Amino acid sequence: MPNQETGEKINFLKNQDCDVLIVGAGISGLISAREILKADPELKVIIIEGKNRVGGRTHTVELKCAGGETEKWDIGGQWVGETQIHIINLIKELDLETYDQHAGGITWMQIGSSKQKKYTIIPPVEDTRYLVDSVDVITKNLFGISAAKMSFLYFLVYVKSGGNLDDLIGSSDTGADAMKIAGGTQQISQKLCDIVGWEKIYLNQALLKLKFLDEDNGETHVEAIVQSTLDETKISKITAKRVILAIPPSECSKIRFQPSLPFDKKQLFEGFPQGHYLKFIATYEIPFWKEKGFSGGMFATGFTDNPGEAHPLNAVYDATSKTGKPALIGFAVNKTWSDVTPKVRKEAILQDLARFFGDEALRPVDYIDKDWRQEIFNGGCPTGIIPVGNMEAYARVREPWKMIHFAGTETATMWIGYMSGAVQSGRFIPQP
Amino acid sequence: MPNQETGEKINFLKNQDCDVLIVGAGISGLISAREILKADPELKVIIIEGKNRVGGRTHTVELKCAGGETEKWDIGGQWVGETQIHIINLIKELDLETYDQHAGGITWMQIGSSKQKKYTIIPPVEDTRYLVDSVDVITKNLFGISAAKMSFLYFLVYVKSGGNLDDLIGSSDTGADAMKIAGGTQQISQKLCDIVGWEKIYLNQALLKLKFLDEDNGETHVEAIVQSTLDETKISKITAKRVILAIPPSECSKIRFQPSLPFDKKQLFEGFPQGHYLKFIATYEIPFWKEKGFSGGMFATGFTDNPGEAHPLNAVYDATSKTGKPALIGFAVNKTWSDVTPKVRKEAILQDLARFFGDEALRPVDYIDKDWRQEIFNGGCPTGIIPVGNMEAYARVREPWKMIHFAGTETATMWIGYMSGAVQSGRFIPQP
Repeated sequence: MPNQETGEKINFLKNQDCDVLIVGAGISGLISAREILKADPELKVIIIEGKNRVGGRTHTVELKCAGGETEKWDIGGQWVGETQIHIINLIKELDLETYDQHAGGITWMQIGSSKQKKYTIIPPVEDTRYLVDSVDVITKNLFGISAAKMSFLYFLVYVKSGGNLDDLIGSSDTGADAMKIAGGTQQISQKLCDIVGWEKIYLNQALLKLKFLDEDNGETHVEAIVQSTLDETKISKITAKRVILAIPPSECSKIRFQPSLPFDKKQLFEGFPQGHYLKFIATYEIPFWKEKGFSGGMFATGFTDNPGEAHPLNAVYDATSKTGKPALIGFAVNKTWSDVTPKVRKEAILQDLARFFGDEALRPVDYIDKDWRQEIFNGGCPTGIIPVGNMEAYARVREPWKMIHFAGTETATMWIGYMSGAVQSGRFIPQP
Repeated sequence: MPNQETGEKINFLKNQDCDVLIVGAGISGLISAREILKADPELKVIIIEGKNRVGGRTHTVELKCAGGETEKWDIGGQWVGETQIHIINLIKELDLETYDQHAGGITWMQIGSSKQKKYTIIPPVEDTRYLVDSVDVITKNLFGISAAKMSFLYFLVYVKSGGNLDDLIGSSDTGADAMKIAGGTQQISQKLCDIVGWEKIYLNQALLKLKFLDEDNGETHVEAIVQSTLDETKISKITAKRVILAIPPSECSKIRFQPSLPFDKKQLFEGFPQGHYLKFIATYEIPFWKEKGFSGGMFATGFTDNPGEAHPLNAVYDATSKTGKPALIGFAVNKTWSDVTPKVRKEAILQDLARFFGDEALRPVDYIDKDWRQEIFNGGCPTGIIPVGNMEAYARVREPWKMIHFAGTETATMWIGYMSGAVQSGRFIPQP
């Protein structure tokens, strides 16, 4: 039965045995499935996914846009760059088309006060406060979290995994924000499902528990307790020889392991929350910002000079589609804008856009925003962050335990937190 | 049907409506139930508990001991002190008997090296390294975690909640370790169940999800999705007007809230792991340590001079029962001793006891240890700790959200983390 909303196929899960159980039908889980089946097509692979769609933190949506038409935009992961070889190779292999992120014109930068300044590049450090606020802009945009909340050591590891800070913050031509995928990034996962076989994928299935079953012959199996999210009274038991958890560390910490995870790994996962992105897309009849000489770009701390007051937007980008339909997208990271009603939030975001680009911003053709905190089986976006003081066990993040393997972009060594890291992590194939 | 192992009564949960759903049959959940029913005996109160017993982090077990007899000891929360007024009043009310912790004689103290020293009190600070290690001894004993892993701000809040550091580390006569309860602390919860009514308590029931149901008349209810831990295919749905989560913050973070918890509270709970105690009890024919002039007490960092090597024990106490049966109890906090086999662990613990008290320690009458990390619905002991950098939202720990109230010792304002805090927290009654 196809999913009414997303057009994806829904299979019904029954109690069964398999060789490999993969948890998570995002990019890394699906790459794992493809690699395992490439190595041995005879293996029985089952992929369970908690959401009603594949793609994980990539999510492509359709909006009304200029000329009375509709077009697709990404409300999740969006950009790729040249040095992200794992995702670039996959895009070629899947025959997807990329196009450049528009960057011409003046980009706004607002650091730490209500005064606004125009810059085309990140400005030089003027004073300590300015430096602190600049770092805050960077961590809010890269991780969805204020600099004060995260480990500097993790920041360094993360940046190193992508090459250098210039590439990560997208100010270079080869940077992480250089290109987009025509038609949206969720196609990556959908095309991987075509290859792997949709019959192996079970949507709306939440993993509750992993129990180790020790057998007489010395071989150990895992029993997975799985709950349907559509009918919560429906529980399935899957036994598997290997399990791949291709989900964020914060989601691993919600699963009951019997026995418990090793000490280090348990403490690491319990202190590895997701950052918090609220992403919006607004489509327009005309690209009024370009006509005024603006790139459509804006970066801000969101702070104002008035204590307790904050602007919603921390970043905005031109999001004109491959077909030339004008749009702006951006992120609200400041927590102030999380617990308000959708109506209040939309108004504040459009007002903030108008503050930079003019009142035309108040009248979009269509508008959508998504609070990734509300997305089940992520509980945040774009990536997990490690708070101050929890890096001690970090080296164990990708270490297998018994027959459980850990994938997902947080376990990558190149481009951690990006789609490219998800692809790389999915390629650490367990040896059956 | 009574629980075969604990003698407690097992009720079978059906789909139903109630006024108040209490999650967790530890001290705070049961006090909540008692207070609510005191205020209005007509309210329908349901208490669900994930474990197969009541008592939470208090757990009383029976061991063989001197003279071929058996006696009860606490493998969980154990001590109370005079200034812990909430638990002291409850003990009186429940007609339980206390007796003094034995403290006479020489107490061992080993700070940061394999050299041993004898002290009767905590020694003066000699150098910086010594100071650091002394703090480590304190945090390992109070929280089950190394000082490097926790917020100093939280440490201060915690100590203040108990009065002062002297009272917490038990070096004063009125301190937190001054008295024990004859027959064990789990009796507190069992007697509260007698008062509240066992028919209201459902063991082996795990809360998976809380969904808000908005009704037409403006009244909002919560639907709780509850899974039996004995038969995982059995799911019950309980709707409630109020919910009290009398469980640790780390357990709250495993529940799926729909919609998501408020931003601050979500991030706080995701960064509020439990400390890690492994507690042992060894019973002996004679109190050989007393005969040698030792108190039976020992405090150590567990560090040795050899990198990568650690002794298991961080604290030992005389645990002679009210009836005079000799025993030693203690804690292994160092992670090194968590992932080894029970046999290796037992041998290392007894060897470490012998290092301080003599070879008689190698031959206990009975021995038990419990890795609280393996205890479902706690995942650690004695209390939640806040790592460096996560105190921003701490003030919201006990703030209700919609009709959900948060209890448990981590939400107390007096004696946070102690049984007394659990009692106090259970008394913050929601206004129906």
